[in-house]
Amino acid sequence: MIVGVLGAGQLARMIALAGYPLGLDFIFLDPSADACANSLGEHLHGDYNDPRLLAELAERADVVTYEFENVPSDVAEFLASHTQVHPSPKALAVAQDRLIEKAFFHSINIPTAAYAPINSFESLEQAMSFIGWPAILKSCTLGYDGKGQSLLKSIDDLKPAWEQLEGAPGVLEAFVPFTREISIIAARNVSGAIAFYPLSENSHRGGILRVAKSCNNDPMQAQSETYVSRLMEALDYVGVLALELFEVNGQLIANEFAPRVHNSGHWTIEGAETSQFENHLRAILDLPLGSTTAVSKTAMINFIGGLPITEELLTIPNSHLHLYNKAPRKGRKVAHATIRSENNEDLTALIKQLTTLADKVDDS
Amino acid sequence: MIVGVLGAGQLARMIALAGYPLGLDFIFLDPSADACANSLGEHLHGDYNDPRLLAELAERADVVTYEFENVPSDVAEFLASHTQVHPSPKALAVAQDRLIEKAFFHSINIPTAAYAPINSFESLEQAMSFIGWPAILKSCTLGYDGKGQSLLKSIDDLKPAWEQLEGAPGVLEAFVPFTREISIIAARNVSGAIAFYPLSENSHRGGILRVAKSCNNDPMQAQSETYVSRLMEALDYVGVLALELFEVNGQLIANEFAPRVHNSGHWTIEGAETSQFENHLRAILDLPLGSTTAVSKTAMINFIGGLPITEELLTIPNSHLHLYNKAPRKGRKVAHATIRSENNEDLTALIKQLTTLADKVDDS
Repeated sequence: MIVGVLGAGQLARMIALAGYPLGLDFIFLDPSADACANSLGEHLHGDYNDPRLLAELAERADVVTYEFENVPSDVAEFLASHTQVHPSPKALAVAQDRLIEKAFFHSINIPTAAYAPINSFESLEQAMSFIGWPAILKSCTLGYDGKGQSLLKSIDDLKPAWEQLEGAPGVLEAFVPFTREISIIAARNVSGAIAFYPLSENSHRGGILRVAKSCNNDPMQAQSETYVSRLMEALDYVGVLALELFEVNGQLIANEFAPRVHNSGHWTIEGAETSQFENHLRAILDLPLGSTTAVSKTAMINFIGGLPITEELLTIPNSHLHLYNKAPRKGRKVAHATIRSENNEDLTALIKQLTTLADKVDDS
Repeated sequence: MIVGVLGAGQLARMIALAGYPLGLDFIFLDPSADACANSLGEHLHGDYNDPRLLAELAERADVVTYEFENVPSDVAEFLASHTQVHPSPKALAVAQDRLIEKAFFHSINIPTAAYAPINSFESLEQAMSFIGWPAILKSCTLGYDGKGQSLLKSIDDLKPAWEQLEGAPGVLEAFVPFTREISIIAARNVSGAIAFYPLSENSHRGGILRVAKSCNNDPMQAQSETYVSRLMEALDYVGVLALELFEVNGQLIANEFAPRVHNSGHWTIEGAETSQFENHLRAILDLPLGSTTAVSKTAMINFIGGLPITEELLTIPNSHLHLYNKAPRKGRKVAHATIRSENNEDLTALIKQLTTLADKVDDS
């Protein structure tokens, strides 16, 4: 059985590592010559919309999935007309555009921050009057890791923020004074069975995820499951999906969702009975989903811009290293580490040790 | 960093899967065109003693290791004179010959069954007089999964057993009326640090391992650790090693050791903080060894000769499937499954479900 993946970065790499034990083989389509999943499957090297490569992928893969959702919609449509594609082009289209995504959340009664579409400097000025300060201006498409986002704290910020959009459509969002950033990872298979992971509690800096922690028996678990299952059902979603949420005064507000495996779920490799990567594959192949039970308290620390010294990291008890085989570059995720512990105090101390290592090499 | 592996079967496959997160790449040397680790690294296709391929392996690999120990000794010597090789040619030489192995055990005070070298039919008849019935006649070299072994229960068995050796040197061993078959997996790194896994309790049928179970806090753990560390120190061993033992009336008798990762340690992938495969790599790269603590009670079931139906197997709660991408063939190990549980009763019930699936497809 051959799984085709659009993208051959670290997510594709970890999908493949989870897929070999299930007897799967992989073909990746990726424009980067040294894409880091290369050595784990066949690499079709070219643009995501290269018609010859897409035809080859559609012809040879039994099922196609994504590690990167920002592919042109006609690519997803083309593939879906020739082979099985999960998640569906519709889910991709909703996730690709922040305005469509927010409208979709509203249509299924999932609360979001107040927002307004922005397509001119005047519309930005007008929207500020009812969104209020502070607010965030984001490009509707192609943003990730905080790219294409500007925090607006005073009138002086308006002009540079607008200019940063370079004429692209934007969305203005009220700033949410959250107490916690969390995400829920869930998997839904072709038959419609859903499995929910325990919540991840996430810490960002500079718009990039730094630490994610598993939260067993979290008070927000049930509400998060309600929202994510509503979203998956409404999209007839197949695969793993991550819904990012803000917690504000005991209420949840949806930020965005990713129609794929997600950085905040990397802890599931060691920390859950079945990883998000294996469950994504089980979901798209319509296999029974694996247990999502947490096997202990687990945290994941990202290494951004620079690599930890392997010897130093592995000296930390119960630490697990995941190198992505990517050349270090400013702001680039090049590795993560996972740490497990049975008690919160130890876990906090271990996270501290790992974040110290991460901060040492972090140039972002 | 490139790790060279002699052999590209399922052990090499699982070594590679554990190695990618550590940022390693792999080159395999294997005579089989469709060796099952192929898709996880570069495959040098040819005989283990092909001088051109060995030179290439020695040239390109930063360190070389084995998934298959029965390579000619001059191969190991050649590689060791050109690059780092772990475990050492000496460890291989001892493990390759049952007579040398038994003598080595004796030299370091590890008890074995009574034994005698056999090089003629007359020597077999003579040896029987002091070894006693029943006994087992084994070829000194190249035996695995019970191949090249004959159980001698009466005088009528002598002739066919001797003929089965086809003139090769043999060893006659007293049959050990064991109460349990166990193994201890341990890792020793270049710096000499050793980590011991909890014992595996093993069930064989037809000379082939069927089920291995992790044994936390086993009364035989300490004695097993004493023996395996004595063995590793004496060999200045680097890597993972499996020592197979019989338990008889609360005493341990060494059966044999394997200078490599071992089938009875496959449960460590899900069942231990760090798998035997990762610790083998850490050991040969002289990295700090990972924790060998069991994360729950775990059992591993082999699929021999035939493949389980994936859907059926994954319906069993907490089951994990490891397909080797090998064509089913009589008596061939083609997959294993792991199962975890917090309590013994549940684990026993789950093992039963898995062995039922395994027996259905087992043609051996």
